[in-house]
Amino acid sequence: MSKRTNYCGEITKAELEQTVTLKGWVKKRRDLGNLIFIDLRDRTGFVQVVFNPETAEQAWKIADSCRSEYVIEITGIVSARQGSAINPNMATGEVEIIASEIEILNAAKTTPFLIDDNETVNDELRLKYRYLDLRRPEMQNNLRMRHDITRTVRNYLDNEGFMDVETPYLNKSTPEGARDYLVPSRIQEGHFYALPQSPQITKQLLMGAGFDRYYQIVRCFRDEDLRGDRQPEFTQIDIETSFLTPEEIQDHTEALVAKVMKEVKGVEVTLPFPRMSYDDAMARYGSDKPDTRFGMELIDLSDAVKEVEFKVFQMALENGGQVKAIVAKGAADTYSRKDMDNFGTFVTQFGAKGLAWLKVDEEGVKGPIAKFMTGKEADLLAVTGAEAGDIIMFSADKAEVVAASLGALRNRLAKELNLIDDSAYNFLWVVDWPLLEYDEEAGRYTSAHHPFTMPKESDLALLETAPEKVYAEAYDIVLNGYELGGGSSRIHKREIQEQMFKVLGFTKESAEEQFGFLLDALDFGFPPHGGIALGLDRLAMLLAGKDNIREVIAFPKNSKAIDPMNEAPGQVSEAQLAELSLSVAGTMIKE
Amino acid sequence: MSKRTNYCGEITKAELEQTVTLKGWVKKRRDLGNLIFIDLRDRTGFVQVVFNPETAEQAWKIADSCRSEYVIEITGIVSARQGSAINPNMATGEVEIIASEIEILNAAKTTPFLIDDNETVNDELRLKYRYLDLRRPEMQNNLRMRHDITRTVRNYLDNEGFMDVETPYLNKSTPEGARDYLVPSRIQEGHFYALPQSPQITKQLLMGAGFDRYYQIVRCFRDEDLRGDRQPEFTQIDIETSFLTPEEIQDHTEALVAKVMKEVKGVEVTLPFPRMSYDDAMARYGSDKPDTRFGMELIDLSDAVKEVEFKVFQMALENGGQVKAIVAKGAADTYSRKDMDNFGTFVTQFGAKGLAWLKVDEEGVKGPIAKFMTGKEADLLAVTGAEAGDIIMFSADKAEVVAASLGALRNRLAKELNLIDDSAYNFLWVVDWPLLEYDEEAGRYTSAHHPFTMPKESDLALLETAPEKVYAEAYDIVLNGYELGGGSSRIHKREIQEQMFKVLGFTKESAEEQFGFLLDALDFGFPPHGGIALGLDRLAMLLAGKDNIREVIAFPKNSKAIDPMNEAPGQVSEAQLAELSLSVAGTMIKE
Repeated sequence: MSKRTNYCGEITKAELEQTVTLKGWVKKRRDLGNLIFIDLRDRTGFVQVVFNPETAEQAWKIADSCRSEYVIEITGIVSARQGSAINPNMATGEVEIIASEIEILNAAKTTPFLIDDNETVNDELRLKYRYLDLRRPEMQNNLRMRHDITRTVRNYLDNEGFMDVETPYLNKSTPEGARDYLVPSRIQEGHFYALPQSPQITKQLLMGAGFDRYYQIVRCFRDEDLRGDRQPEFTQIDIETSFLTPEEIQDHTEALVAKVMKEVKGVEVTLPFPRMSYDDAMARYGSDKPDTRFGMELIDLSDAVKEVEFKVFQMALENGGQVKAIVAKGAADTYSRKDMDNFGTFVTQFGAKGLAWLKVDEEGVKGPIAKFMTGKEADLLAVTGAEAGDIIMFSADKAEVVAASLGALRNRLAKELNLIDDSAYNFLWVVDWPLLEYDEEAGRYTSAHHPFTMPKESDLALLETAPEKVYAEAYDIVLNGYELGGGSSRIHKREIQEQMFKVLGFTKESAEEQFGFLLDALDFGFPPHGGIALGLDRLAMLLAGKDNIREVIAFPKNSKAIDPMNEAPGQVSEAQLAELSLSVAGTMIKE
Repeated sequence: MSKRTNYCGEITKAELEQTVTLKGWVKKRRDLGNLIFIDLRDRTGFVQVVFNPETAEQAWKIADSCRSEYVIEITGIVSARQGSAINPNMATGEVEIIASEIEILNAAKTTPFLIDDNETVNDELRLKYRYLDLRRPEMQNNLRMRHDITRTVRNYLDNEGFMDVETPYLNKSTPEGARDYLVPSRIQEGHFYALPQSPQITKQLLMGAGFDRYYQIVRCFRDEDLRGDRQPEFTQIDIETSFLTPEEIQDHTEALVAKVMKEVKGVEVTLPFPRMSYDDAMARYGSDKPDTRFGMELIDLSDAVKEVEFKVFQMALENGGQVKAIVAKGAADTYSRKDMDNFGTFVTQFGAKGLAWLKVDEEGVKGPIAKFMTGKEADLLAVTGAEAGDIIMFSADKAEVVAASLGALRNRLAKELNLIDDSAYNFLWVVDWPLLEYDEEAGRYTSAHHPFTMPKESDLALLETAPEKVYAEAYDIVLNGYELGGGSSRIHKREIQEQMFKVLGFTKESAEEQFGFLLDALDFGFPPHGGIALGLDRLAMLLAGKDNIREVIAFPKNSKAIDPMNEAPGQVSEAQLAELSLSVAGTMIKE
């Protein structure tokens, strides 16, 4: 092997007449007359290499035996392409290498799919041969962008005095939150570590330890059923600070995100990001993470339809619910009655019983519920702003159902009707979250964020008497309808933390048993503190313009949490289980 | 809360007469006459704050109620100290803050130990209240230094074109290497992920994917019994490259380490680092990670003592072993006969049967085996270079036992005799490692490094016929007697990898089952590649001048792999185990 002098994709006319040694993969081989052309690829791109049997017979012979994805090393002289041979569509299109030497460093069998961005390959095959899938320029770029993001994040935080501190992955299982991944202990029979869902308590303890500004780009683990933007393990940009207000933490986060947008995407975003209360977001967009790249806001018709004698509306209002609508501008000709039926089915998954709708034309409103509108049409059009050619879609139900169904319908319609500017990055803070949610099934309150979130000081008195009315010092950052991260002030006083555990249904004993070390820590001079965690996978996914975080993770799992390449998780030996005093499904381990 | 204007430890005369707001912990409170002095501490250090009842009565009253480790916020004016009040031993010793306001942000109970570097606290208590232990300036500095190391490493590697790629923590258990930590799968009953002992195969696959230069600062996991420089989880600076020679990888590593030494410690190290073959290191230092800060090399006496009629020597030589010695200069008066007996006991843990020794004085040699030396003294002194006042200590046994016992004795004596320059940083490459070790117990060869290490090309033919004679393209980097990291060229051809598995005792089927995905990958155009992994914990430990990696880890485990703070690993609910189809120690899980 000789020493590489250049990367393939970086050769330009600046290197003309130089002798270069390149290493890489055969992207394509073509025979043209008695010349052989090889496009040689490495991580920077590719360049054309020419083998001429008259000037380099030995090299030409070896080149003749090369196939796609062979790993080769070539030496040759950089030459200018002439006339029509110049390819303005490729970075190295003005040059080619006239090869004098070639060495085959490794051969390649025919790959199960072409290494080409234009090739459509099914996801399972891509994951099984991930090392081939990752050779595609698109995947190389996605991971390069991810690297650029983390680099920018680290530089910003390092310069702002944040300290990168590693926290344990072998942690303790706690009853709150999602399902833990467990790790059996060999030394303590019947005991288990848990992989962290986030280093939440640990980073708070670092504030108790006086580190003042902490960050970590850290893996987190949740054993949940998987979706497009979920993986068993995911990565978090984890930040915690002492003595800062929520606004100061938001300022840091904005500056950080703006720097990433500028350095990675070349996009200038306007600061500060808009703030919207949780209640407003739910009312106007039916979502706690509204996509504000388009309008189509939810319109409250509870007043306007009070007199409309449509039973569905009346019942909803009588039961303390709402009647709301969204208006799909100019969609009347796009959607047939059958399409509207489909939307009706679609909203049932969000708890709605169906979808009432009206099409507007020059003469008024048409559609299944038009007959109830007689005499109320002008009012309705005035309140909704609907015009000829529009469709009004209604939801009448409990507030949660109205929000969920119209919110989801709004997102679906925007995609179908091409209302979204793909080049826009709409950031938004959703602030003033409720502290708690009521879990009907468990018959108790659960944390909207986590049990360490600080209630609004003004609501502290309500914590015992009317917990559902308590708001939290919590805030989410939203990008284009995705929750990018969430932050809050944390509880730093023992008595408030104890009260919180009580509201969540812990006894004094069970709180002590699970979280005693944290309660103790709060006794020894704990500073006011707060922080935020941003989802790195989602951020990278959105900046790469993808809709699945698998596209920005080198070796992700499939939807069954399996890695189709190495088939993890796998079976282990009985000896391994015996050492852990474990047996599977009640089968005794034989010694 | 007001906004902090400055950090405590950074206030100097440059801020004279300015009004500042500081936040931090009460390090100490003293009453002097009617004034109260509080040393206020944050992560940067501390500053003296003065409360005067005549100018700020309210603040003085609150200050009077403050105790150690209270978290407070103060506002006041920076003033110059006068005359003897100036304290040249403290960074802020020329100033003090005349407080006008104070707010108690949180109270503190009396801490179980003083937050002071001079306080001796037992390790278990330190870990139980780690958040208090971490408040000590020394621990703050250790973690700050660790941060500085990783920052320097990342900057170097980023600038050299290395890409930070995250690899999975939920991986597959493989039979080679140390014991895996397992993670049961909920979805695939009876199947387990394994936490990676290192991302070895994964990073190789990234080379197969064309990433060319990879790095990651990554957590690794080994379920082994613990020692001072071992933890269940540890952090590795993980590097892999394509197309580079071992020398080029070593050059990068040296440049990286030199940059860390310069930026973190202000120490200029000389490049290149010395190279020593494994065989030389074992022969001269009895160690594969020799501490070269002192001499006391092993001297081969196998020739010199051939005629000495001491049965121990003769038997060792007859059995194909060696006779070697080290000379402890000037130690004859330091060590009594009882001390020498203790050394004899010490070396038995390395397989030696005892320790022969001689003291040298003006008249010749003295000691238990002096009588065998009659007539050979001059020879012995000439070969060993021993002089009056020295002790010669012998080992006569198999080569491994001689090396292990004299190597360990050499390190122990150097410490006891103060031969080590604590300010020296002696880096060393140990190269040309044997590929395999013979495991007597298992009756088969095992890898000296790992099964993916490339044999020396010149030795490839020996792989089937005389595996024990094969050397590897492997190299360790050693600092002051600690293995800092190990690297190698990896196998990139399927046939060699298959041969290697065969030598290690795999059948074709078992190799395919465990490592089939890697073997397949080697078929599809795998580049020549190699890399290195450096132990971040050890590097930080050595630069911090400590002898236990716990001192540079925020939340380490104790020697039983328990975190005494949160008591991880803990018990989990039967419901959690049932979901994983697991039972402990043969007990059936009740539904």
